[in-house]
Amino acid sequence: MKTQLTQLLTIDYPIIQAPMLGVTSPGMVAAVNQSGGFGSLPVGLQTAETTRTLIQKTNQLTHKPFAVNLMVHAKPAWNEERVEAMRQFLQPYYQQFGVESPQFSASPFPDYREQINVLMEENIKMVSFTFGIPDPGIMETLKQNGVLLMGTATCVREAVLLEEAGADIVVAQGIEAGGHRGTFEPEKALPQIGTMALIPQIVDQVKIPVVAAGGIMDGRGIIAALALGAAGVQMGSVFLRSDESIAPEVSKKAIGQSTDEHTGIIKAFTGRPARGIYNELATRLGSAQVALPDYPLQIALTNPIRVAAAQANRQEYMTIWAGQGASMAPAKPTGEIMRELIEQTTAWLGKLTELR
Amino acid sequence: MKTQLTQLLTIDYPIIQAPMLGVTSPGMVAAVNQSGGFGSLPVGLQTAETTRTLIQKTNQLTHKPFAVNLMVHAKPAWNEERVEAMRQFLQPYYQQFGVESPQFSASPFPDYREQINVLMEENIKMVSFTFGIPDPGIMETLKQNGVLLMGTATCVREAVLLEEAGADIVVAQGIEAGGHRGTFEPEKALPQIGTMALIPQIVDQVKIPVVAAGGIMDGRGIIAALALGAAGVQMGSVFLRSDESIAPEVSKKAIGQSTDEHTGIIKAFTGRPARGIYNELATRLGSAQVALPDYPLQIALTNPIRVAAAQANRQEYMTIWAGQGASMAPAKPTGEIMRELIEQTTAWLGKLTELR
Repeated sequence: MKTQLTQLLTIDYPIIQAPMLGVTSPGMVAAVNQSGGFGSLPVGLQTAETTRTLIQKTNQLTHKPFAVNLMVHAKPAWNEERVEAMRQFLQPYYQQFGVESPQFSASPFPDYREQINVLMEENIKMVSFTFGIPDPGIMETLKQNGVLLMGTATCVREAVLLEEAGADIVVAQGIEAGGHRGTFEPEKALPQIGTMALIPQIVDQVKIPVVAAGGIMDGRGIIAALALGAAGVQMGSVFLRSDESIAPEVSKKAIGQSTDEHTGIIKAFTGRPARGIYNELATRLGSAQVALPDYPLQIALTNPIRVAAAQANRQEYMTIWAGQGASMAPAKPTGEIMRELIEQTTAWLGKLTELR
Repeated sequence: MKTQLTQLLTIDYPIIQAPMLGVTSPGMVAAVNQSGGFGSLPVGLQTAETTRTLIQKTNQLTHKPFAVNLMVHAKPAWNEERVEAMRQFLQPYYQQFGVESPQFSASPFPDYREQINVLMEENIKMVSFTFGIPDPGIMETLKQNGVLLMGTATCVREAVLLEEAGADIVVAQGIEAGGHRGTFEPEKALPQIGTMALIPQIVDQVKIPVVAAGGIMDGRGIIAALALGAAGVQMGSVFLRSDESIAPEVSKKAIGQSTDEHTGIIKAFTGRPARGIYNELATRLGSAQVALPDYPLQIALTNPIRVAAAQANRQEYMTIWAGQGASMAPAKPTGEIMRELIEQTTAWLGKLTELR
């Protein structure tokens, strides 16, 4: 299939695998690449060294280029009072799971600016990013090094800002999408626009290729996205239960048993709104009368509980990101999922043609 | 174009015009019919006599059948305390607009059960409904009289219930849609599933034809919906600014100036969640510490303000229902909008075919 996107990325099918921290493995990226799509390696919140290791592991598995995904959020404001209040609120859960209350006096996560050199040293072909736009100097440096830049927009306004800042591709993330909303400033406005309405409105306002994300789970969704004017799709949830997904087994099981009604936008796990399966921890944090520390400080505070819960198979206290179509996610090897997506897309194109 | 829906309704194109109270006129219904689509006449909350008058007016304008749309919500609980508290809260606005505080001691709106005889006497071909499922006896009576039944679902669960109850067609209403959510029991759960994720999940679970609604604004959206497995579309927002729309001019102007970010789900205008353009009245009611009387009691309480505001061109105190794609609504005659939709759909089908 030929679209603006397959030509720009020299791939066979306009399918980008979404970067999913805690789910995507180098093996998943490689399997998508080998199937004619384009893989994405999530490295948000990782140190420069871990970033390098992950890239090198992926390069060992595929000779084709892939995207590396950064989280370009503002540096979190350090608010001792909020961090302490949240720590206190979480104390019973730390105890319940036998973990230590995490101690830190500044964000324990590195900034994306510390990862840029590694990306260039490792000759990354595309950098995708979310939560905003990298500093102009970084955009310029990456562009001068021939790196393609793909930003995430959740409304027309953000898409236009990305194009103006020099992005080569924009991912239009509909409200159906699993995981974090790419919204630039969610505390000011949280656009919740569905993919069906979002894609054509963005396509009409920018000249760069638009990649549709959110609720796309099979060949039907891929053609629908192309029909709306997208040059391709970014799919995440379809790979959640794949063999190459490093999500805990209990997550995969919960996703397999979920319905269209099981997810919601949850801010309390990390400090930024993200779509996942509602559970006890989400409910308790949601009803707590405690202000949330900034992203990613809240991640550091909730992480010990979520990790211990995953090890104990306690899905009610984990984080299970998933999109509104996740009930359709197949439990298969990534390569087989890709093959089926491609077959379905071709078959459905034929069926549509018969409508004329 | 041939789909399961065009065959069932003997229409040329699988386009149903959504029933929009306060927007849809008999002229709009007729223009859609004459263009090869299927019009819908909203009669929710109307008396039997008004229902008859509206049907007869429409029949004077078109010889083809159309749908009549009912609101099949439960009878509202009369809660004197809530009604009084809301009346008190609204008092400054009644005064500001020089209108009387509405007096009633039971729901001033008739029940849908009072409309059924008229529908049969007038030989209506299709009854569409929202907010639930009509009583089994009414479903049976309508079916025995050869009336097609089309229900509204906002999640897979509701679609399955509709099929089990004997519905012939299900409208799958994505979160992008303007106006009231069709959700059966919004106080228990309010599914907010985007069209892209909702359609295939419903298509996979029911055998009756699925009509996609929500965010569909042009030929791109129509093909996308068909690609997702829908047998047709129901479009409302695209007709909001049409010549045949009886929406106030100030509403049409606000919609013309809106962006993808301007709408939200608002419960406070009517007592049931509905998508419209945010304004001052929505904000004030939303932040009021006053419990809402049941739908449709809240309509009776807010109506005088909203009607007076419309007459005074004060959009900040009106109700302007609109979907997430409403910024794309053209200001043209309904017949011309239909012709363009059909042209776009055919042209885009051709473009998609070239992808292979």
